[in-house]
Amino acid sequence: MTHDARRYAALPSPFAMKRGGELHGARVAYETWGTLSEARDNAVLLLTGLSPSAHAASNADDASEGWWEAMIGPGKAIDTSRWFVICVNSLGSDKGSTCAASINPATGEPYRLDFPELSLEDVANAAQVVVQGLGIEQLACLIGCSMGGMSALAYMVLHPGSVRAHISVDTAPQAQPFAIAIRSLQREAIRLDPHWNKGRYSDGSYPSDGMSIARKLGVITYRSAMEWNGRFARIRLDPERRDDNPFGLEFEVESYLEGHAQRFVHTFDPNSYLYLSRASDWFDIAEYGNGSIMEGLKRIRIEKAMVIGVSTDILFPLEQQEQIAEGLRAAGAAVDFVALDSPQGHDAFLVDIPNYSRAIGGFLSQL
Amino acid sequence: MTHDARRYAALPSPFAMKRGGELHGARVAYETWGTLSEARDNAVLLLTGLSPSAHAASNADDASEGWWEAMIGPGKAIDTSRWFVICVNSLGSDKGSTCAASINPATGEPYRLDFPELSLEDVANAAQVVVQGLGIEQLACLIGCSMGGMSALAYMVLHPGSVRAHISVDTAPQAQPFAIAIRSLQREAIRLDPHWNKGRYSDGSYPSDGMSIARKLGVITYRSAMEWNGRFARIRLDPERRDDNPFGLEFEVESYLEGHAQRFVHTFDPNSYLYLSRASDWFDIAEYGNGSIMEGLKRIRIEKAMVIGVSTDILFPLEQQEQIAEGLRAAGAAVDFVALDSPQGHDAFLVDIPNYSRAIGGFLSQL
Repeated sequence: MTHDARRYAALPSPFAMKRGGELHGARVAYETWGTLSEARDNAVLLLTGLSPSAHAASNADDASEGWWEAMIGPGKAIDTSRWFVICVNSLGSDKGSTCAASINPATGEPYRLDFPELSLEDVANAAQVVVQGLGIEQLACLIGCSMGGMSALAYMVLHPGSVRAHISVDTAPQAQPFAIAIRSLQREAIRLDPHWNKGRYSDGSYPSDGMSIARKLGVITYRSAMEWNGRFARIRLDPERRDDNPFGLEFEVESYLEGHAQRFVHTFDPNSYLYLSRASDWFDIAEYGNGSIMEGLKRIRIEKAMVIGVSTDILFPLEQQEQIAEGLRAAGAAVDFVALDSPQGHDAFLVDIPNYSRAIGGFLSQL
Repeated sequence: MTHDARRYAALPSPFAMKRGGELHGARVAYETWGTLSEARDNAVLLLTGLSPSAHAASNADDASEGWWEAMIGPGKAIDTSRWFVICVNSLGSDKGSTCAASINPATGEPYRLDFPELSLEDVANAAQVVVQGLGIEQLACLIGCSMGGMSALAYMVLHPGSVRAHISVDTAPQAQPFAIAIRSLQREAIRLDPHWNKGRYSDGSYPSDGMSIARKLGVITYRSAMEWNGRFARIRLDPERRDDNPFGLEFEVESYLEGHAQRFVHTFDPNSYLYLSRASDWFDIAEYGNGSIMEGLKRIRIEKAMVIGVSTDILFPLEQQEQIAEGLRAAGAAVDFVALDSPQGHDAFLVDIPNYSRAIGGFLSQL
């Protein structure tokens, strides 16, 4: 038996959003691992990609495997015998935090598209409420993966002095047009599904087709062509696994995508997906530097950072991690830049555990 | 005034298809430029990508600009004062050739999904009927771009001795899983559109949404992230050009994709798109070499070849053009391999005219 390990932090009410609008009675879900030291100086905050929950690893309350299970635990790269680790479910995500599927206290109905415009700055501010609520003045380290890496940049620029060290994983200082195009098309697939119905879907009339296309496009861009050449090549499905529809599944890679889509479609709220996806497009550290990425990053004051990227990432290409490393260095931090050749593309941080463990474990052990 | 410059070649009836099935009373459309020499030894055949018509350039009958206008004409890289150039519309394409939208003589109704399974070998065989019908025993050069490059490999392996020289442009000896995944998702977007209706759509009930998603995904993968960084960056649309729909267009890159989609959706028959897309996934030169790409290519007997590819092409990556070059070389041809750094991705052959002109013009001038 596993239990819900989530805790909840109430956000100040009203909670003002960056682009206008406010939330009343909102909360974010989080989980923790390890023990906060008396000096409260061993806290590590983890901000996630678009879809994961706060359940990054198993813990006493929930023994089920987390999404970064191999990285977090006693003796692992993020060593919970030393660090007090907090993972926050993004504001706007439906894994326990207030989101478009939550009840709007003003109407008693779900927000749906009445949820205010969401930005990663709001995600960062909500996470900071959790940290503050735990009595932590300064994080020993802030780790952000993928979208969470952008939320982390927002956190540091909005809360000067709140972070000592930072680990930036497979992320970017702003969305480039290729990533915007991909995410825009994912959103369009959902919006064009007649069952989306301008956000007013139900379990019985649900935009499964749009979500399926969005997820498949996600998986295609999260992985890499190189990995798939070795993994799937041109292998056909056994005849009994093919589907009978015209132009239906025939190749192993198609079945792999179908499996991913099936597992995702009903486990993520479509409207929440739209909000978080657009927030990723909007984020731009250059907004804090008069239009310059470098100037924006130079406003971040931390002591040390490690910036990790992968040469096979097409969504957050390596030169974007180089920009982050350069900018943080120009701001005065001691920065390690780690360029990996993992074949798994953007998702390498979830798959290439040996390389990410070595880098992250090595960095944390020297703090 | 421009006139239809198309000519038509009747295919043998029945025309047997590679995967079984046959066509009766089928034809393919083609256009020509220049004059066939008395010795009939100056013919250049051009096989196209998935969507272009046979109208590769303006000519006496149709003054409108063709899809490779800058490359074909007197004094241009494909110099029509010397060469007799033929461009064939692929069998299965709706630009004049028999396709899924054509009338099935057995029923008097459009074929729709009763069109037999289409392969690029069928496309190649239909093109060869045109060449034969013009009394040409051997092509001076066979040029194939993108999907047409795969059709060209099929042509050469199926018709030994029919080609002296070959120019392979941005193509592959087989579809890799990344390309299959992209095309599968494009087909799925069309198939999931309720208006597709298992192929039984009409002008009034047409799968526009599915075609739009398919086209946008195509354009995303035909270009490159690098080009878009320079071209679109994070430029927003003027407020009056945004759409009012929730999560509607906001960035310039989204508007660019929308424009491409709008121009395409009603100018290509959706069922024909499905057939040609799947034919691209199916093609595999290794079928002619006991499962080996190299052995398959080694069965192609030509004198000279030029193989061109682009480092920014994510759909047909450069290593696939290297394979073609190696294989043709191993088969005994003198092969020039040209690796370009054009930023435009797979579509570079349509855009980077200076580099493609220089390469193709140089090669042809030495024949």
